[in-house]
Formats: sequence, C-alpha cells, structure tokens
Amino acid sequence: MIYADNAATTKMSEAAIRTMTKTMNEVWGNPSSLYSHGQRAKEILEQAREDVAGIIGAEPREIFFTSGGSEADNQAIRSAAALGKRQGKMHIISTAFEHHAVLHTLEALKKEGFEITLVDVHENGIVVPSEIEEAIRDDTCLVTVMFANNEIGTIQPIREIGAICRAKGVLFHTDAVQAIGHVPVNVKVDNIDLLSSSAHKFHGPKGVGFLYAKKGIRLTNLIEGGAQESGKRAGTENVPGIAAMAEALKEESSQMMQNAAHLTAMRDRLIAGLSEIPHSALNGDAVKRLPGNVNFCFEGIEGESLLLLLDDKGICASSGSACTSGSLDPSHVLLAIGRVHDVAHGSIRLSIGEDITEAEVDYIIKSVKEVVEYLRGFSPIWRDLMTGKKEFIL
Amino acid sequence: MIYADNAATTKMSEAAIRTMTKTMNEVWGNPSSLYSHGQRAKEILEQAREDVAGIIGAEPREIFFTSGGSEADNQAIRSAAALGKRQGKMHIISTAFEHHAVLHTLEALKKEGFEITLVDVHENGIVVPSEIEEAIRDDTCLVTVMFANNEIGTIQPIREIGAICRAKGVLFHTDAVQAIGHVPVNVKVDNIDLLSSSAHKFHGPKGVGFLYAKKGIRLTNLIEGGAQESGKRAGTENVPGIAAMAEALKEESSQMMQNAAHLTAMRDRLIAGLSEIPHSALNGDAVKRLPGNVNFCFEGIEGESLLLLLDDKGICASSGSACTSGSLDPSHVLLAIGRVHDVAHGSIRLSIGEDITEAEVDYIIKSVKEVVEYLRGFSPIWRDLMTGKKEFIL
Repeated sequence: MIYADNAATTKMSEAAIRTMTKTMNEVWGNPSSLYSHGQRAKEILEQAREDVAGIIGAEPREIFFTSGGSEADNQAIRSAAALGKRQGKMHIISTAFEHHAVLHTLEALKKEGFEITLVDVHENGIVVPSEIEEAIRDDTCLVTVMFANNEIGTIQPIREIGAICRAKGVLFHTDAVQAIGHVPVNVKVDNIDLLSSSAHKFHGPKGVGFLYAKKGIRLTNLIEGGAQESGKRAGTENVPGIAAMAEALKEESSQMMQNAAHLTAMRDRLIAGLSEIPHSALNGDAVKRLPGNVNFCFEGIEGESLLLLLDDKGICASSGSACTSGSLDPSHVLLAIGRVHDVAHGSIRLSIGEDITEAEVDYIIKSVKEVVEYLRGFSPIWRDLMTGKKEFIL
Repeated sequence: MIYADNAATTKMSEAAIRTMTKTMNEVWGNPSSLYSHGQRAKEILEQAREDVAGIIGAEPREIFFTSGGSEADNQAIRSAAALGKRQGKMHIISTAFEHHAVLHTLEALKKEGFEITLVDVHENGIVVPSEIEEAIRDDTCLVTVMFANNEIGTIQPIREIGAICRAKGVLFHTDAVQAIGHVPVNVKVDNIDLLSSSAHKFHGPKGVGFLYAKKGIRLTNLIEGGAQESGKRAGTENVPGIAAMAEALKEESSQMMQNAAHLTAMRDRLIAGLSEIPHSALNGDAVKRLPGNVNFCFEGIEGESLLLLLDDKGICASSGSACTSGSLDPSHVLLAIGRVHDVAHGSIRLSIGEDITEAEVDYIIKSVKEVVEYLRGFSPIWRDLMTGKKEFIL
C-alpha cells in the first residue's frame, strides 16, 4: 500500500505508540488525584504541555489540550466571538476555503447576529494580507485564516496577517492543523493569538489536539464541568494520548527540515509527472505549499472513480477533505480558487508521507496516468470535449 | 499499591489496551476515506457502535461517540435546552448532587434565561420520584438525574423517573458515567431519552465516551465542522479509542454479575470495618449504592491529610470527585445530603476494583483506623469535641 492521504490522517509513529502504550499500562491514574499515582500522571501531563509549548514558542499555561483540531477551532472562534460581543464588536474576517470546523462555526455565529467577511483566496489559493487590512473595521473582533489549506496545501502569509491584526488590535486565530509538525510555526514570531492543532495529522493519536491561547485571552468553555485545563476544558485529561501527541510532535519537529527537503523533492517530481497528463492543472500555488501536498484537476473525469481505481492499484488518495466525503458537492476549496464545478469534480489530493520513495512516486504517476486515460475512455464529458461540443477549460 | 479510586478512573483492561494498540498499528486510516484502508477503519467504528448500542439496549444510530462523559453531558443538556427553548419551555429539573459537567452547564443555561429546579436528594442520597413528578411544569423541557452518584455511589430510581417523564412528555437525561459497565442499564427498559457515558470509568481509555440519544431527538452540535457522527459531532473519529471502549464495555458487561457479587461483599466488609471507628458515618444509602463504592465521614479530621497518609501506606483513595480536587470547598454532594461543612471535610471515598481481595480490604480498614486515630491525636477540632467545647454530630 502506498499511503498518500496524510492530510486526512497519518500513521502513528512507533515512538508515539510506545509512549501511549507505556502510559496506559503504567501511569493511568487521574492527574487530578492527590496520591502519588495520580501525581505521576499530572507530571506527564505537564511535561507534555511544556514540550508542546516549547515547540511552538508558547508558554505552558497558554496550551489547552482538547479532543482534536475541530474542538480547538470551535473553542478559539467561540471565545473570540464572546469577547467581541461583550464590546459590541460583532464582525469576523475569514476566507472561503477554511476547514468546515471554522466555516460552520462562523455560520452558527452568523445566525447569532455576527457579520462575516470572507476575503478572496485568489487563483493561487493565497490570501493577500493587504486585503485583510482593508477588511478590518472598528467592530472587527477576530480574523481567522488557516496556516496551510487542508486540500490544496497552500501556505498563507500568517506572519504578515498576524502583524496587521496586532497593529489593529484585532484577535488573530489560525487553524494550523495541517501545518504543525510539517512547517515551522512559532506563535510569537508569527504574531498568533489563537492556534488550533490536531495530533493525528503529525503521527500522533486520534482524539487529541491542543488550542494555544495567548495569555490574557479569556477562553469560553465549550465543555463545562470539572476544573481541568485551568477550568477552560472539563473532562479527565487523556494523559496517554496527550503524552503520545507530545512525543510525536517532538519527533516531527526534530526531523522537520530533512523531512521537508525530501518531501519537497518528491512532491515536485509528482507534480512534474502529473503535469504531463493533458488537460490537467495543479491546484494552488506551486511553491508556497506544504512539502507533501499535491492537488490536481483532470478535465473530463470524476475524482471519486479515480480514487477507487487507484485504491485497486494500492494507492490511498482523496478527492478533498475526508470530513466532507460522502457529499456530492464539489470541494468548497476548489470553488474558492475559481475552479468551475465540472473541473473541481475531477480532482485528486495526494498528500505524501516522509517515508515515500522515488519509485513509489513514479508508480503513482504511472497509475494516475493510466487511470485518467481509462476513465476518459468512457466519459461522456470527455467525448463532448473531444468532439468540440464542450470547450476545454484546462 | 491498593487502588481504591476507581470512581476517579480505572486501569485499562488488557483486552482494551490490546485492541487499542492493534488498531493504532493496523487500522489507522480515516474512516471517512473512500479507499479500503479507510473503510476498514469505518467497519471497526460501526462494529463498536453496534456493540455499545447492543449492551445498553439502543440502536446503533442512537449512539454518538464523544471525547468523554463531560462532553456527552454538555451536549445532551444543551440539546434538550435548545429544543425546549424553541417551544418556549425553559424549565429544567435536576438535583443538587449532579456531576459538575451537569451543574455547570445548568448554571450557564440559567444565565441564558432558563429556570432550574433542584429536587432534594435527602439524607440517603436518593431522589424521590414523586418529587420529580410534582416539580414538572408545563414549561419543563428536561429532567436530568444521574444514574449513580460519583461520590457516594447511591443509585437513583431511574426507571421510575423515566416513566414519569415519558408520561408527562418531558425529555429525560441521565449521567450514567458511574453506572455503565457496573450495574445493569437498558435505555428502553429504563425509559431513558439521553444518556452520557465515559470509557475510562469501565477500564476503557481516557478521552472517549458516548452519548445515547433516542431516535427523533435532534442533537445540537457542541463541535461544528465535518459530517462525522451523523453531522452531530465533528472531528476525525478516535477509532482506536472507540474500539477499545467497546472492547472494555463488552468485557465488563459479560462479567458484571460476578463482579458485582464480589464487590458488594468486599464493600460491605469495608463498611462494617470502618463503622467500628467512633464518630464515623457512611455517606449515602447502605444498600442502594454501587457495588464498589464506600464513602465515610470521620469527625474531627481533614480528608486531605487522611488521603496523603493513606498514600504513604500504598492506598489510593479520594475525598470526593477528582474533578474538583484542589478546591477548598467541601463536597457539594455531601452538603446536598445534609452533612455540615466540618463533617463533610473529613470524608473519604474508597471505590474498590473488581480484583480487590479480602486481605486488601482488611489492610484498608486497619490503615484507615490507624490514620484516623493518628490525625485525631493532634486535631484541634477533635480536642474541642473531646473536651465538650464542641458537640459531636456523628
């Protein structure tokens, strides 16, 4: 199996599984308990908090463990909205190609009276900071822009956007679920107030993530109850999962530069190979993208059939976000960068992993070429395109 | 180490750890992915849903996996409140000794305009169903009463309360975090509309739980985003954790009767032994309580010192809910059953596990006796009691 869907989820690293298993077996006490068995769990929890904080340039008390990226996104945005509302500031700026954990929270806030401005992400899938600046109003309480897009992998000018927000006194949140562990992220240098992350995107366990909130920002609870996480997130802490997340993040961060170099080379080889397919196009900027992300449109085919046939060839890929699979709508991300419905439908995302080889990349290229050609062979849209009934877009 | 704090958290069973590790290693795909590796994860997820549903008498589509009991409590209550509000019904009935995940959610709803009635839990820590019936009004949208109390272990007449709610057309939620896996729970027989559960209380992993919601009840999202869990709980499913939870629940359920028989015998031996300590009292009904729960008050001492000295003797116990440890307030549960502050402060909860032996119980009795006597030796309150400056309550 060639797993090329690391943006959907990653395999846990051996070290992370080892940490998880060891903690489940040996340090399974409740970290809120006073006896020494509980306090050992507390120490592991706080060490993980220190490790995670250190890696992203935060202080330990600025890290709040959650059940994952979606929860962190929801809590970050809800918190900023609550703070804004108290000051009569009910305007939020974001983009149309955010993850649904952000977009659906914004939709809910819209129903509660907030006004939402979505800035353009342009053809290359990259926000222009000056357009954020122009969108900021006196009643803007939050700007939320993802660090790297989960479908097309484009990396946003977070530092510049953060600087603008800071100068204007507006809170800045970034969904960094796809970025953490893969590209350098430093909340201080990057001027970030709120940041969401998810462990299973960097070889940690599922069901764990964290929210960074700059000190002084008062969080709103999504989950009320016990006094865990400074009273901001109730529920017994998932100590084994949190320890495994910290382990995975330490590992990924220490290998980030060499992983990125290898992945970038493999990514660019994959892009070059797939570009040979006629009437195809890379989605998103060719350079400012995650080292492991390739996203292509092929005219005249259905992405879903492409995926299923690649699965037969042992290749795991996706047509967009796993969170929205099952939906018949084309990707909102591809529509946001200006792809028309028909073209957006024929898309594939290949998010390769650190251990991919050149031979595997070549096998993917060969397989995609074969499958695209095969599918076009009996596609009515392709026939219309070839006979001139329809015009090629790509 | 004698671990007598199973109400705070339990050690994962070997089978649950095995299932977790196997799933992390082998079936780590995203269950929303179309390729076969993802679909295998989906199968495991749905098998777990079927297993959990079967055990509590529900249908698989009535089970929503969450990050734990607190999240499930919050979502259940928020959902019922939202449904009520739409009908102009903004009255909720509960008790004063619920878990904070319930009480704090109710406090938040109070600020949003809901009216909360807390019925009496009486000296024995058991709700009287007719008092619920009398409290129900035309604008009551929810009754929420825990299945078994997390501190004193008293089991509530859930079936009767459920029947009353059903007859009156009011939704009934129960926080069954302490009950599931330990005493029989069947949502159909027990007339339950919404139920919360947490895996780490029945030898499953931390960070996983589930919400049962009777079909037809429209849930409100706490976490917006992807379409997971029928669109009611966003975020990549924690498949290894969910599979391990199902494994633990199957195991606990199949052994429930023999575990309960052993635990009840050990519990009653422990109660008998501790009752020999002068000026002590069992908290909560002696019979209608969880098989593994013992909760005592000892006059003239501080529970916290008792715990620390027991820790030195290798015994893990607690003075109340782990979620509120660190707080100087006495347990809200003990106050609810009428204990005065001084007496409530001198409390200990011993929640024994299935593998406890008679010798271990006897060692606990001996140790508690020694420690209580030792602490009373230099307690100013005890001196006042003994010299008649203060009157004994127990």
